Amino acid sequence: MTDTSRQFVLGKRPDGKPDRDTFELEKGDVPEPRHGEVLVRTCYLSVDPYMRGRMRDRDSYADPWDVGDRMGGHVVGEVVESEHDAWSVGEFVFGEGFWSEHSLLDGDDLTPVDPSLQNLSLPAYLGVLGMPGRTAYFGTLDVLEPDPGDTVAISGAAGAVGSTVGQIASLAGARVVGFAGSDEKVDYLEDDLGFDAGINYKTTENYRAALADAAPNGIDAYFDNVGGPISDAVFSQLNVDARVAICGQIALYNDEGVPTGPRKLPQLIAPRARVEGFLVGDYATRFEHANDRLREWVTNGDIEHRESIVEGFENAPDAFLGLFEGDNIGKQVVKVAEPSE
Amino acid sequence: MTDTSRQFVLGKRPDGKPDRDTFELEKGDVPEPRHGEVLVRTCYLSVDPYMRGRMRDRDSYADPWDVGDRMGGHVVGEVVESEHDAWSVGEFVFGEGFWSEHSLLDGDDLTPVDPSLQNLSLPAYLGVLGMPGRTAYFGTLDVLEPDPGDTVAISGAAGAVGSTVGQIASLAGARVVGFAGSDEKVDYLEDDLGFDAGINYKTTENYRAALADAAPNGIDAYFDNVGGPISDAVFSQLNVDARVAICGQIALYNDEGVPTGPRKLPQLIAPRARVEGFLVGDYATRFEHANDRLREWVTNGDIEHRESIVEGFENAPDAFLGLFEGDNIGKQVVKVAEPSE
Repeated sequence: MTDTSRQFVLGKRPDGKPDRDTFELEKGDVPEPRHGEVLVRTCYLSVDPYMRGRMRDRDSYADPWDVGDRMGGHVVGEVVESEHDAWSVGEFVFGEGFWSEHSLLDGDDLTPVDPSLQNLSLPAYLGVLGMPGRTAYFGTLDVLEPDPGDTVAISGAAGAVGSTVGQIASLAGARVVGFAGSDEKVDYLEDDLGFDAGINYKTTENYRAALADAAPNGIDAYFDNVGGPISDAVFSQLNVDARVAICGQIALYNDEGVPTGPRKLPQLIAPRARVEGFLVGDYATRFEHANDRLREWVTNGDIEHRESIVEGFENAPDAFLGLFEGDNIGKQVVKVAEPSE
Repeated sequence: MTDTSRQFVLGKRPDGKPDRDTFELEKGDVPEPRHGEVLVRTCYLSVDPYMRGRMRDRDSYADPWDVGDRMGGHVVGEVVESEHDAWSVGEFVFGEGFWSEHSLLDGDDLTPVDPSLQNLSLPAYLGVLGMPGRTAYFGTLDVLEPDPGDTVAISGAAGAVGSTVGQIASLAGARVVGFAGSDEKVDYLEDDLGFDAGINYKTTENYRAALADAAPNGIDAYFDNVGGPISDAVFSQLNVDARVAICGQIALYNDEGVPTGPRKLPQLIAPRARVEGFLVGDYATRFEHANDRLREWVTNGDIEHRESIVEGFENAPDAFLGLFEGDNIGKQVVKVAEPSE
């Protein structure tokens, strides 16, 4: 075990697109756990689009980071010291940690990694078995509520959340159409995940025509991670009683203009569409149930998953910045350290 | 009874804001009813914002009018000839008719005017006791679902629908804040209708500050008839689990640009807001119940109503155009002929 540990803090608030200067690498001593705390050595760190919101000096569902604050994020890692009865050295856990090689965490807030899955894929706990998987689970089954025969459209379909949404919707009997940003991603959707159709939004000129072709019966439900012109196309083809889940709006996260409310809502009237923002945290009382389902689907092969892994803690900023370029297929994670077993 | 009758047809499709040339006045013979039909002499004609949509060559929830088509609209009038068993000459009815002095209507589609209310206010059947009243009823109680203690915001609050929404929300125990376009209207909201606060959006510079002042606990439900900057202010102050009913978007109806979907949806995420378009026609199976309630509330004084009356059939286009200038307080109707009693 090293005596020093590195961490990233918010170096400065980005104006528009974040860049390397947004992040500042610091080195310090490895902290000592106090009663109830656990020292976790990070094996994998999650980078997620919502973190862009915390870099802004504006209250939202997650508190903003101040310049100099250590940045938060989900981690999966190994207990290296424990002052909490429930945890022993050598166990693998996941939970909300920090962009740091070691995190002192409250033992009450950690979740064990299922030992039977440990060798399968530790980083899956940051994706399909973690917050993104639960976001997909509740966003699909509680907000979109697809019926058999419905057509479900998804933006950001090859990402951690979108790829899981599409597979859950398929399990529910829906036809699934996904937008993604490369031919490789479209192949992944169609060949590996069983989507009925994928649309490459970077090479397709007319989104409406492509969508009409891929979804000839219109759109009954739309899971939106992106916003912007893809959404314009989907909203133009909503069926009566359509549901829209607003999960993220990555196309707009770097817009520092005065925030306005939704514009151009007349298109909701004819289809009596329901558009709903949601936060996975509201479903906390049902997380265990969702975890069980997702684990079962992953184990029996009903749900495929993939992680894009950037190696090396020092490359975490690049992994984050790549989210806005669409670099990742599936969940973007950073490999910080090799698990010790 | 005259032998000739006047009617308006769509003269040409408007490009942007409609004007007098949008309408063409025609004169013809009074038609004869066939079996099952009733000839209704129009006393009052309704003009409504949704009619703008029917002037556009685009399918929506109401079929577009072709150039030369007689324009449709709700009427309240008197039976002057009947070939339908249910109706006798001299009875007052209301239903979907036309912009014409006489309409041949299917007797099965007409509704009787309650004789006890007839002297109270025939034009109320085009407002609080008609389609706008029912729109307010279902939009409030089924879409917004205000709880006691909630704050409800309304745009277009002094109009036929908005003024009824606010009063129903008050009856449900909510605090009600309305946006309207003149001091006279704001006084009407506050003094006559019992709104907790009114905001004159034509003289107020900072909508957000005014709204924060009028609704210090934030907005739990928003009934939107208008769209645009008023909505921006409301969306910035939504509470968790807020509901937004999209009834109309009069600020945008004359926009002939390429229709885009909703933009700027990130603001829905933190409050987990639900935005829903709705059409009153979907609640047809419960119209009778809504009618009963509304009639009771009007009769016992729980709900106030007002009609803005333009005199003379030939002035119907001006009455319609005035909707976009905010000329009306309460329901805008055209008085076509004096009832014969």
